[in-house]
Amino acid sequence: METIKNVLVGQSGGPTAVINASLAGVYETARAMGAEHVYGMRYGIQGLLQEQIVDLNECLSDKMDIELLKRTPASYLGSCRFRLPNPDVDEEPYKQLFHLFEKYEIGAVFYIGGNDSMDTIARLAAYGAKVKSSIRFIGVPKTIDNDLMFTDHTPGYGSAAKYIAATIKGIICDSSVYNLNSVTVVEIMGRHTGWLAGAASLAAGADCNGPDMILLPERAFDEKAFLAKVSQLEKERHTLVIAVSEGVKNKDGEFLCDLVSGPGAVDAFGHKAALSGTARYLADLIKAHLGCKTRAVELSVLQRCASPLASRTDVTEAYQVGGAAVEAAFRGETGKMCTIYRVSDIPYRTETGLTDVSRVANKEKCVPDEWISEDGMHVTPEFARYARPLIQAELHPFYVDGVPRHLHL
Amino acid sequence: METIKNVLVGQSGGPTAVINASLAGVYETARAMGAEHVYGMRYGIQGLLQEQIVDLNECLSDKMDIELLKRTPASYLGSCRFRLPNPDVDEEPYKQLFHLFEKYEIGAVFYIGGNDSMDTIARLAAYGAKVKSSIRFIGVPKTIDNDLMFTDHTPGYGSAAKYIAATIKGIICDSSVYNLNSVTVVEIMGRHTGWLAGAASLAAGADCNGPDMILLPERAFDEKAFLAKVSQLEKERHTLVIAVSEGVKNKDGEFLCDLVSGPGAVDAFGHKAALSGTARYLADLIKAHLGCKTRAVELSVLQRCASPLASRTDVTEAYQVGGAAVEAAFRGETGKMCTIYRVSDIPYRTETGLTDVSRVANKEKCVPDEWISEDGMHVTPEFARYARPLIQAELHPFYVDGVPRHLHL
Repeated sequence: METIKNVLVGQSGGPTAVINASLAGVYETARAMGAEHVYGMRYGIQGLLQEQIVDLNECLSDKMDIELLKRTPASYLGSCRFRLPNPDVDEEPYKQLFHLFEKYEIGAVFYIGGNDSMDTIARLAAYGAKVKSSIRFIGVPKTIDNDLMFTDHTPGYGSAAKYIAATIKGIICDSSVYNLNSVTVVEIMGRHTGWLAGAASLAAGADCNGPDMILLPERAFDEKAFLAKVSQLEKERHTLVIAVSEGVKNKDGEFLCDLVSGPGAVDAFGHKAALSGTARYLADLIKAHLGCKTRAVELSVLQRCASPLASRTDVTEAYQVGGAAVEAAFRGETGKMCTIYRVSDIPYRTETGLTDVSRVANKEKCVPDEWISEDGMHVTPEFARYARPLIQAELHPFYVDGVPRHLHL
Repeated sequence: METIKNVLVGQSGGPTAVINASLAGVYETARAMGAEHVYGMRYGIQGLLQEQIVDLNECLSDKMDIELLKRTPASYLGSCRFRLPNPDVDEEPYKQLFHLFEKYEIGAVFYIGGNDSMDTIARLAAYGAKVKSSIRFIGVPKTIDNDLMFTDHTPGYGSAAKYIAATIKGIICDSSVYNLNSVTVVEIMGRHTGWLAGAASLAAGADCNGPDMILLPERAFDEKAFLAKVSQLEKERHTLVIAVSEGVKNKDGEFLCDLVSGPGAVDAFGHKAALSGTARYLADLIKAHLGCKTRAVELSVLQRCASPLASRTDVTEAYQVGGAAVEAAFRGETGKMCTIYRVSDIPYRTETGLTDVSRVANKEKCVPDEWISEDGMHVTPEFARYARPLIQAELHPFYVDGVPRHLHL
């Protein structure tokens, strides 16, 4: 096993509040273990193919930079949504990349991302083995969607969940100030899985009942049952707040967000109207059938980039998986993804582990059936038992001039 | 001048992050000055007419309750949007209210709200004078819109501005992760004035350029000039973020949000499509004319109820105007609104003052012309000099089980 001189790290896929904490974990651990240079890919593997490389030794020399980096949302290095081709069909990008690895004397490559990014690591590791390279390739999990297999959860999810829970709690306050009946439908990210929508349940506590209903993409939308439940709850409660995953589909497999506009609806400029969302669809549906005052709120991009509501547990674990990935590479591992293993719920304790990256790539973990309530319109207490520890504690930004200070390249 | 035995306080209009800090200021000051009971109106004057009254002595006996109250968004007592009639036309509600004041031995009434609420105080004070009542009526300013006259600013604005600035900063991070051109249009509250949209400029600092354009309702929207500027900026910059006030109108006085859907657009249920907003309109406009990738984000209700981003300056001042209102009533003042007077910008210092509530009622303060940039599509540094002090410092929620703990009746 050859020693590692320099390492290379990239970020890929959508932003999270803690992806940069993983970068800090990779950087600090690699330096501590003796790497001379830690290089960063600008805009992931796509930027790397254009040799967009930065020397992180120059950017992160002060411990203050590391603290700022941990508190900076989105992707410090920039990101991409780019998949490597099958090398049997097109070997060119692999040749290019391995040439760059040689040029920069790279002994290990780390890629922080979701299941698409794990596909990149799997392909690079397989190609490396084929060409008998000694370079190690390790994946670092990241996604607010929490849909990666073989890990208890993914860094990024806890902070998104904390943002969603706190925001739903604020919306419940906001919606109950008037002595009027109303229904507020809040749209939450999650095209295929309901992990994020389910996190709305964490708003509940001694001072808040939490959302009245939660719809997840794991269950097909049943209009009749839905309207019956809204109608029944409306009789009991002053105001309703319904959390809905953007990816909810009806029994025919159509996304509700695709049904919002009437047939042939156009925008002000005569083009096909943009989809205005699942929450809008449900708010319109309730209004049309039950006649009550409705409101649609879309949490939008805020749920993935809200550093003021980062979970300290999440930041810490994001850092740890970054560090553990480096340790694994220095031990000689390759083609692996770092995982989080939950030792116990109470007290909450985790360890890092490793799994074959090819087992993770391109797969999706759904919310278990038994964590969804029988009528399919809420989550069970088991969901909260799982998710509650992930939103514990805070890591506040450094506020400068009234706003969070970030670190940028 | 008669002594004051009990006092009554109500909250009115839309939620803010700090309206309950004003309530805490009224409560604690009134008790400290010798009031036996501090009663609260449930759902403002509308609930009061149904004798929905709570004894706050019973709800706020522990100092911990006061601290939680200061950190609870929306309206602890509940709110209403209700205007008292002209007493010459309909005296009945006045008789009812003054009968209740007598029944509960009320010596002073405080109403925390915006310009509609100041109308209520003005009418009650005028009626009180007419019937020779010794009860004092004092208004406590509150509105995220910052549109009240004769006060440097309104409590509630600073926290909304801090939320907007921090969120725009996060959105700028989020929108710049990919190496792609894109335009993100962010819709901010403010139907008639641009104080909130202007606060987007506070995202700017050493680590952020802030939004590229800001559109305020104080200026009519000029499509040609707008598209020309977007087109020009797009050539210079990777990604654009545009902040827009929901209340922007075109030269014909039509709200842009009214123009979103094509003529006769209906929702999925055949009803007239809901307005999907000013940001959506502009995103569609840019896409139609310039062909680039656009995204519309609506900050929605979050900007007025985000306790995690409350400004400590705002919380403190909200508490102070509540207390100053009580002091004024005990001095014998009536028919007044408490104001904030800025002593200096650097260091930022304020004092509380008083103004005739009838001068404030039903009027609106716009962003001064000289604080809007010449092309009408940004704000000048004077705007930030004014607004920056209002977002300084934080008052973090008490996090319990990972989410902010609130106080509820």
